[in-house]
Amino acid sequence: MKIHDSFWSGYLRLIKGTVLPFQWSALNDEEGIRVEIENSDAPIPTEKSHAIANLKIAAGLASGTHQGYWFQDTDVYKWLEGVGHILNHFPDKELETLADEAIDLIEAAMEPDGYLNTFYQLRTPELKFKQLHLSHEMYCCGHLIEAAVAYYTATGKDKILRLACKFADCIDQNFGPEEHKRHGTDGHQEIEPALVKLYQLTGEEKYLKLAGYLLDVRGPDCFDFESFYTPKYLQAYARPKEQETAEGHAVRMMYMLTGMAETALHTGDGEMLAACHRIWENITTRRMYITGGIGSTNIGEAFTFDYDLPNDTMYCETCASIGLIYFARAMLNHEQDSRYADVMERALYNNALAGMGRDGKQYFYVNPLESFPAANQNSPNRGHVKSTRPDWFGCACCPPNLARTVSSIEKYMTSIAGGEYYTHLYIGYESEVSLGESSLTLRQEIAFDHRLDVTFTVDAKQPAGAVFNFRIPGWSRSFEACVNGKKLDNPQISHGYLKISKVWSGSETVTITFDAPVLQVSAHPFVRADAGKVAIQKGPFVYCLEEADNGDNLHLVRLTPETVFTETRPNPLYPPTLVCNGERLEVGGEWEGKLYACGQTPRYRPARLTFVPYYSWANRGVGEMLVWVSKR
Amino acid sequence: MKIHDSFWSGYLRLIKGTVLPFQWSALNDEEGIRVEIENSDAPIPTEKSHAIANLKIAAGLASGTHQGYWFQDTDVYKWLEGVGHILNHFPDKELETLADEAIDLIEAAMEPDGYLNTFYQLRTPELKFKQLHLSHEMYCCGHLIEAAVAYYTATGKDKILRLACKFADCIDQNFGPEEHKRHGTDGHQEIEPALVKLYQLTGEEKYLKLAGYLLDVRGPDCFDFESFYTPKYLQAYARPKEQETAEGHAVRMMYMLTGMAETALHTGDGEMLAACHRIWENITTRRMYITGGIGSTNIGEAFTFDYDLPNDTMYCETCASIGLIYFARAMLNHEQDSRYADVMERALYNNALAGMGRDGKQYFYVNPLESFPAANQNSPNRGHVKSTRPDWFGCACCPPNLARTVSSIEKYMTSIAGGEYYTHLYIGYESEVSLGESSLTLRQEIAFDHRLDVTFTVDAKQPAGAVFNFRIPGWSRSFEACVNGKKLDNPQISHGYLKISKVWSGSETVTITFDAPVLQVSAHPFVRADAGKVAIQKGPFVYCLEEADNGDNLHLVRLTPETVFTETRPNPLYPPTLVCNGERLEVGGEWEGKLYACGQTPRYRPARLTFVPYYSWANRGVGEMLVWVSKR
Repeated sequence: MKIHDSFWSGYLRLIKGTVLPFQWSALNDEEGIRVEIENSDAPIPTEKSHAIANLKIAAGLASGTHQGYWFQDTDVYKWLEGVGHILNHFPDKELETLADEAIDLIEAAMEPDGYLNTFYQLRTPELKFKQLHLSHEMYCCGHLIEAAVAYYTATGKDKILRLACKFADCIDQNFGPEEHKRHGTDGHQEIEPALVKLYQLTGEEKYLKLAGYLLDVRGPDCFDFESFYTPKYLQAYARPKEQETAEGHAVRMMYMLTGMAETALHTGDGEMLAACHRIWENITTRRMYITGGIGSTNIGEAFTFDYDLPNDTMYCETCASIGLIYFARAMLNHEQDSRYADVMERALYNNALAGMGRDGKQYFYVNPLESFPAANQNSPNRGHVKSTRPDWFGCACCPPNLARTVSSIEKYMTSIAGGEYYTHLYIGYESEVSLGESSLTLRQEIAFDHRLDVTFTVDAKQPAGAVFNFRIPGWSRSFEACVNGKKLDNPQISHGYLKISKVWSGSETVTITFDAPVLQVSAHPFVRADAGKVAIQKGPFVYCLEEADNGDNLHLVRLTPETVFTETRPNPLYPPTLVCNGERLEVGGEWEGKLYACGQTPRYRPARLTFVPYYSWANRGVGEMLVWVSKR
Repeated sequence: MKIHDSFWSGYLRLIKGTVLPFQWSALNDEEGIRVEIENSDAPIPTEKSHAIANLKIAAGLASGTHQGYWFQDTDVYKWLEGVGHILNHFPDKELETLADEAIDLIEAAMEPDGYLNTFYQLRTPELKFKQLHLSHEMYCCGHLIEAAVAYYTATGKDKILRLACKFADCIDQNFGPEEHKRHGTDGHQEIEPALVKLYQLTGEEKYLKLAGYLLDVRGPDCFDFESFYTPKYLQAYARPKEQETAEGHAVRMMYMLTGMAETALHTGDGEMLAACHRIWENITTRRMYITGGIGSTNIGEAFTFDYDLPNDTMYCETCASIGLIYFARAMLNHEQDSRYADVMERALYNNALAGMGRDGKQYFYVNPLESFPAANQNSPNRGHVKSTRPDWFGCACCPPNLARTVSSIEKYMTSIAGGEYYTHLYIGYESEVSLGESSLTLRQEIAFDHRLDVTFTVDAKQPAGAVFNFRIPGWSRSFEACVNGKKLDNPQISHGYLKISKVWSGSETVTITFDAPVLQVSAHPFVRADAGKVAIQKGPFVYCLEEADNGDNLHLVRLTPETVFTETRPNPLYPPTLVCNGERLEVGGEWEGKLYACGQTPRYRPARLTFVPYYSWANRGVGEMLVWVSKR
């Protein structure tokens, strides 16, 4: 699939030309990269990545000792996965050479039995597989597998795939229900969905079986819980199949759910799928921010409880939204329903994309819905919220996670299920597909302005019956669809998709126009943080106010029933900027020297307000930002 | 002074009959007391007080080792101070006997050189005076001094005074500017104001000098700062005289300011007093809750920054408000201005009193302005907020601090300055005073209902000139004053006090009626947490909504411009309950299964709302509470 899209092609070029080279520099501790630990109580503050250095030392190619977290290796694996994905879009000899070097290093660092975790190898080999609640050993294996699947698929080079299989086999030989094996799983889920991918690629049943085992063994008897590592934090307060709600560390929860959904796709485990459905409902109707962010508290980077969605103390980790995208995508394999794609799109275009700066060299770990630099700096409760994106982190999971996700955008755009073709995200592309017995060339062109115009062309060399389903986005109120210029008067709609079923012959064109109004969205009244407020959304983009456009004290601003939005487009590659008439509370002399007072008459003056897409915030220096805005 | 007051006499009886006996039980680890650690990361969780046991062990009268914090001794000292104060109001042989027992224990536990800190004596004697940033050794000495001054003053028994002087002399011999002494001060201020009291009682200049030294030596070079114990936390980022704002641990800040104001009163140190003025302004116009609570964050129990007053994650420790009362009282010694007394009253009648349950056996450490039990239980960011008062704490500073403060209420009510008499708080009493050369009998009677009626009678055996100043409370909009029934047409007002200067002869009566309307108070617009909200206040009392009266989801409730309050009085001893017409947002079926939606029309239905005084909340089981209420 070739992406030709005004918005996404730029991202892919950025990943290739800037993001991956920059991240390679970071992984190699090159100069001039500002590393920030993600929160002040991080157990291992690191001033540099040291990820490649760790591998070199473990391989005996350099001296020194391990630095960083016990999962530092995964930064390299995720980068490799990103390289694999981007090579599907662009040939790039330089990146491929770097990747091959890294793979050689991995080979050299790997132990004869397939074990690889430079922290345990270099620091505490006696504790290998003995601290499962914290060790991340399988988590590391999972990321190596995902890198291998991506890199092998893109290049056909199988060295990394052999290494990943060897590591997976090492896990398989050590863990399982058999009496002679260890019984347990990793504190940080990730290997489960990875093993399913490895099964899909290799056809080896043992990997699917291992994924199922690791999901089933999790539970109250599975870990040595201690202080921070509580049963909820680790999603181990009940067996995964029995869980009802999203609890604990949000990224782990997402990776587990993705693994459950992907495993159940192959095993047909109904209980496992039912749990996915229950928890999906819990997240998306009670515990998800409008930006697709999840994790309401920084303490444990975790879910809290229903409708608890504070905008200023939340976590909303970039990786957690990426995990939600994966989970949504996995659910779409089970059930082609637009509610999954709606959430996938929400998380992708907002919380996830906000994780990277426009220059591709700066990243957010935490994605607030309200940023007040004075508070970020002076209130310890908000110390984890950064006002601008750091270059890199002591715990640098997010930057390469973004690289691997954005570089594989095509995996989220479409799917084939039950012999039918589904369009989930509206992104321009061209591809050849086999649908049933037909081979078709598809081309999708997108124009997003006051509305979303989709032009979908099917080229069939020979007449061929095929069913195309187009998602009707949740943010669109109406649409009009034509086939070869002829309007569909009674469009067939199924589970939120417009279904077009016909025999295609020669070049035929479907055009769909979705209206994309500026929406003033309210949150459920039980969401206390958003009471009396609205968020602005247009198309997939949630908007925000920034100080750069609107001055400071953004909480003094409000919309009114008379507020009308107009759209401007400073850059045709980006979504529009929204401008509206609102009001701003004047803070007059009557408050001089007073903190509390009676009978002060609030005076509002008209104010022109400018909203920009949330994903683009914090690209213009330090300043306030606000998603949920008061409304009279 | 004899208190005869419908509100406060009940409190004094409660302190004598219940609070002090209960606290003695707690200090002696008697059965059935539910001890709660104040937050989950407390370094020393204790399941019992062990405070008396520690003294017994240090005295060689029991075996075992120290349990609890390194300042556990102060719980006994503060209790002793409370006993001293209450004996001014009521003779009580039983309490006095218990107190004498405790004093004997203190004597037995004290080392020959006067040193006393059971933690260091029993656990790490080699670290005595070597961990000043955390040790609390002088803090303990300060509380012993305050207990001694109170108990000696009430009973004339001087054993505890001798012990306190001995401990103070031990500090004096070890610390000071002289070369042979240690240079430094305690991490936790408290000894400074205590030493001034000891100076006032004994006339020994050395204690005043030591107070001054300990205040002046504080600064960036004073401590071994480490992790938690930062320069700001310890108010040591600058010399106290140079500080501009309230920073760090709120209780420490208050005790330091009290010490500075009290020291400056005697030394005339203008720089020190100027710092007190600056920081007073900073606190009361930028960093104080409407309840008189201070400390906007639980992390470090600390101040944060201007206008940062979150209602749900704050700390507002009971002890911090008590400290603010002390600081305000000390400032009144310098300057008879009602703004100090207004704040003193606010902190006393709201945050401080809320620290104790109606039964006198349950206490809050943290005093939120918004309590949502689900959040207190499920959000780690609010785990420090308790939905109901525990019986006791691992760190139990607050309960005996309340006991010593409430039992000495008369110290805050009136003062004499420049030969004039000042009434700061309106509480009923009778006393004999010497004013200049006159000896007068004063009687004040109070009726608080729709208004505050003060009847102040002066009995002068012989005609005597005297000036009486009556505070005009900030919450009153108008007043009428009469002398012997004759209205004052041009009352003389000075710095917020009504001044009545005349020759008094026989029995003469001043009557003042202050109106006490129900106020809808707004916060400065920069206080983000209170935007669009009002707090209800009547007289000195801030009010709140409780679930017991108004159902749950209190955030759905709002006042309107048509809201009118009526007052009811279920119990004549307590302030009125306020009832008004408001509105409640209906959460209808249109939200079923939705978290975000557009075009939902909010429907409000009329709702009768009941407000109760904030100090009385959480006496009726677990439920929501809200001070700042939305207003249309």
